[in-house]
Amino acid sequence: MKRSEYESAKQRTEEMFAKAGIVLTAEEADKIEVAGFGLNDLERQGLELITYVNSSRYCAKELVLFPRQSCPEHLHPPVGDDPGKTETFRCRAGKVFLYVNGRSTDGIQAVVPAGSEAYYTVNHEIVLEPGQQYTIEPGTLHWFQAGDEGAIVSEFSSTSRDEYDIFTDPRIERMPVIEEE
Amino acid sequence: MKRSEYESAKQRTEEMFAKAGIVLTAEEADKIEVAGFGLNDLERQGLELITYVNSSRYCAKELVLFPRQSCPEHLHPPVGDDPGKTETFRCRAGKVFLYVNGRSTDGIQAVVPAGSEAYYTVNHEIVLEPGQQYTIEPGTLHWFQAGDEGAIVSEFSSTSRDEYDIFTDPRIERMPVIEEE
Repeated sequence: MKRSEYESAKQRTEEMFAKAGIVLTAEEADKIEVAGFGLNDLERQGLELITYVNSSRYCAKELVLFPRQSCPEHLHPPVGDDPGKTETFRCRAGKVFLYVNGRSTDGIQAVVPAGSEAYYTVNHEIVLEPGQQYTIEPGTLHWFQAGDEGAIVSEFSSTSRDEYDIFTDPRIERMPVIEEE
Repeated sequence: MKRSEYESAKQRTEEMFAKAGIVLTAEEADKIEVAGFGLNDLERQGLELITYVNSSRYCAKELVLFPRQSCPEHLHPPVGDDPGKTETFRCRAGKVFLYVNGRSTDGIQAVVPAGSEAYYTVNHEIVLEPGQQYTIEPGTLHWFQAGDEGAIVSEFSSTSRDEYDIFTDPRIERMPVIEEE
């Protein structure tokens, strides 16, 4: 991801937080993460986030999805003694379409990114509106997409070790670098 | 606590959430907890909260303090294999004066509830405004009070076992019942 693309996404994220009444310190705003997953397709596949706390005991983040942006399908595997991350998604603003392992939902409401259909394999749909939440157990394949207005999601979880996440799309790099221009 | 007092505090809590743009489902609103700690002094000593998730791995709550309301001094002891609750307080709205073990702060900004001075023993002050947070390790005595506008605090933590909390004030009952009228 180029520096200019990062800065633009960061600013948009800050604006969405402000609109939702979610306050970050200036120091936190400077650490907003823009995850493009190395796909060079941020508008359709990506995720913006701030990590409030990530310790050996628990983790809390705030996730932002731009309108119709998808976080690509992945799962959280066991890591050493840890059975894998358990996470609770709580919708704070907007609408989220979440897909997990399970019985297929006919006519899902998300739009699978064209060209990446092979990497979005689970389609049991859960719809989250503000105040609604859902807990994803370790080892569960999942992906999620915001509705037309974007979304803000609080994530409460066990310890986060993003670098171990297993993505269905083999092209994905979870931790790409920002390219200075 | 009488049913009418509970209902009034619950409604006030819902109004503070609404003002801060924090959405609860109707089912959650019905489960708002009003903790008066058996002190019959809710305006000065009490806490309102909703628990979003409390599992064997992590916990997340939203706490509400009315203007100048204090959560009395307590600590989280070890329970079995658990070293005790670690908790991160993140101020979402209003202002919070938090006191923990440590070097005394001269001229603290909170007003210790008259008649209960003996039970507020730690006075190392941390001030939290929206976006600011602080993590309290197990076994740390702490108490906190909202500023003049009240406060909303997100609590991210390890598993919560409130019934084991140790309060400095021996008159406190953590889990009193609501008296029907």
